[in-house]
Amino acid sequence: MKSDLWIEEKLEDYAAFRWKVERTLFSGKSDFQSVDVVETRGHGKMLLNDGLVMLTERDEFIYHDMITHVPLFAHKNPKRVLVIGGGDGGTAREVLRHQSVEECVMVEIDKMVCDACIEHIPQTAKPMIENDPRFKLLIEDGVKYVEEAAKNGEKFDAILVDSTDPIGPAAPLFGHKFYEDIRACLNDGGVIASQGESPFYMSEMQNKLLSILSDTFKIVRLYSFTNMGYPGGLWSFTYASDSVDPVKDFDAAKVENSDLKFGYYNSEIHKSAFVQPNFVKERIAPYIKG
Amino acid sequence: MKSDLWIEEKLEDYAAFRWKVERTLFSGKSDFQSVDVVETRGHGKMLLNDGLVMLTERDEFIYHDMITHVPLFAHKNPKRVLVIGGGDGGTAREVLRHQSVEECVMVEIDKMVCDACIEHIPQTAKPMIENDPRFKLLIEDGVKYVEEAAKNGEKFDAILVDSTDPIGPAAPLFGHKFYEDIRACLNDGGVIASQGESPFYMSEMQNKLLSILSDTFKIVRLYSFTNMGYPGGLWSFTYASDSVDPVKDFDAAKVENSDLKFGYYNSEIHKSAFVQPNFVKERIAPYIKG
Repeated sequence: MKSDLWIEEKLEDYAAFRWKVERTLFSGKSDFQSVDVVETRGHGKMLLNDGLVMLTERDEFIYHDMITHVPLFAHKNPKRVLVIGGGDGGTAREVLRHQSVEECVMVEIDKMVCDACIEHIPQTAKPMIENDPRFKLLIEDGVKYVEEAAKNGEKFDAILVDSTDPIGPAAPLFGHKFYEDIRACLNDGGVIASQGESPFYMSEMQNKLLSILSDTFKIVRLYSFTNMGYPGGLWSFTYASDSVDPVKDFDAAKVENSDLKFGYYNSEIHKSAFVQPNFVKERIAPYIKG
Repeated sequence: MKSDLWIEEKLEDYAAFRWKVERTLFSGKSDFQSVDVVETRGHGKMLLNDGLVMLTERDEFIYHDMITHVPLFAHKNPKRVLVIGGGDGGTAREVLRHQSVEECVMVEIDKMVCDACIEHIPQTAKPMIENDPRFKLLIEDGVKYVEEAAKNGEKFDAILVDSTDPIGPAAPLFGHKFYEDIRACLNDGGVIASQGESPFYMSEMQNKLLSILSDTFKIVRLYSFTNMGYPGGLWSFTYASDSVDPVKDFDAAKVENSDLKFGYYNSEIHKSAFVQPNFVKERIAPYIKG
């Protein structure tokens, strides 16, 4: 009898998603969570935190395009960008492609995620490997970082909350105080985007996050994308700002005239990502503003 | 030790999707395929043909909204509609909600699918249970039906190809001859939509289908939706017509002023469904026409 290695992510007690694993490249337990990198058969390398799929080499371009380019092209001229979480480096990688960006600060709580990706997933860890003088990595608690930054008057044009689910280390990232501090750290014309969960399977969590944003910001939206690694395929980011509407204020020509090439994002995707099917639209309507 | 019943759909040799099964309601083997209906824990009843998930009660509204309402609202005034396949009844159910429709002919090759759904999934089997005089069910081969219909000068305003994957009984539905006959059965201003596979996992099959349509029709498009039951979440339909562009000729007011309520479809979704991310847009560009 030959054993056959698979990784399985369970969804509640009624669904599960399995990926064929060729070999385990890294398996560790940090102060915050378990961290694993495996080589899959069909999706390249895969990062898992606490057993949940964070990214695969095959489709990480989708998530990273959408968390980054939607807010950065919504903004008029983003110069200073803060990434909370995003320890794999993929979000910072996309931020740094924008020539307007003068500084990208990435605040990741778990050094083990960074180290595992630097060693095994250089595709996303690029900013942590190359020496772009605009990039600054801080290994610390993102919640405490924005609390201090708010007190010290630090300002950013865009803040991207690239977090895991609100269990484990990311739980405080789904709270009012965190988003009040985030707002205090925004320059005029500033925008934010946050990992916004599944409209199918995590609708209550999505409502909770939107409700916090709705209490805090003048403009609040939900936008969606589809990848293969997350349960149900459909996934969302939340968008918030006090002044920039990501659709009405969007200048499609800026994308179309840009030299940047994207695997997923384009100017039409930017607009259509904010369109929601009725069952989502009706549920989130109380929280959408602006 | 207690056994625990799950159904698993394999994707190639590298991914699998598992659903918790409470009990099996029907399990049969027809002349064409295996047919199973199970009660799942999280998704209601589920229909499987040859072990592949066809629909679940929880999310079938998405597929059926999108195969039906996109072409039917693209069309100016659809009166006579043909459904090829669709043995569960869900597509015909949505067709019959359109008041303009005077006749809906459904041609399903496998009576076992119809019977299993009539008994166990009345939610989709509605047209086969109720006595709508506009509905006509024929248990026969859809390929032969359109061949004869084309010869006899039968005409339809919309033809919806609600097929399984191009293995087993649905294989001839992915051929040139079939679409030439379909085209011959269209009235002026007629439109078609076909199950168009996964842009992630079945891109070659999608290209093949688009290539056939591109050889046959003057206007060819791909549009997408996301549900939970299909691998990768993201799924597509192809659209074709000789005269009606589903976006440029679309009258959003017709949807907005309609009395019909939809779980997924709305006028904004109609337009944004045709927007493709770059990795799909670039791949299918050679086949998109009009």
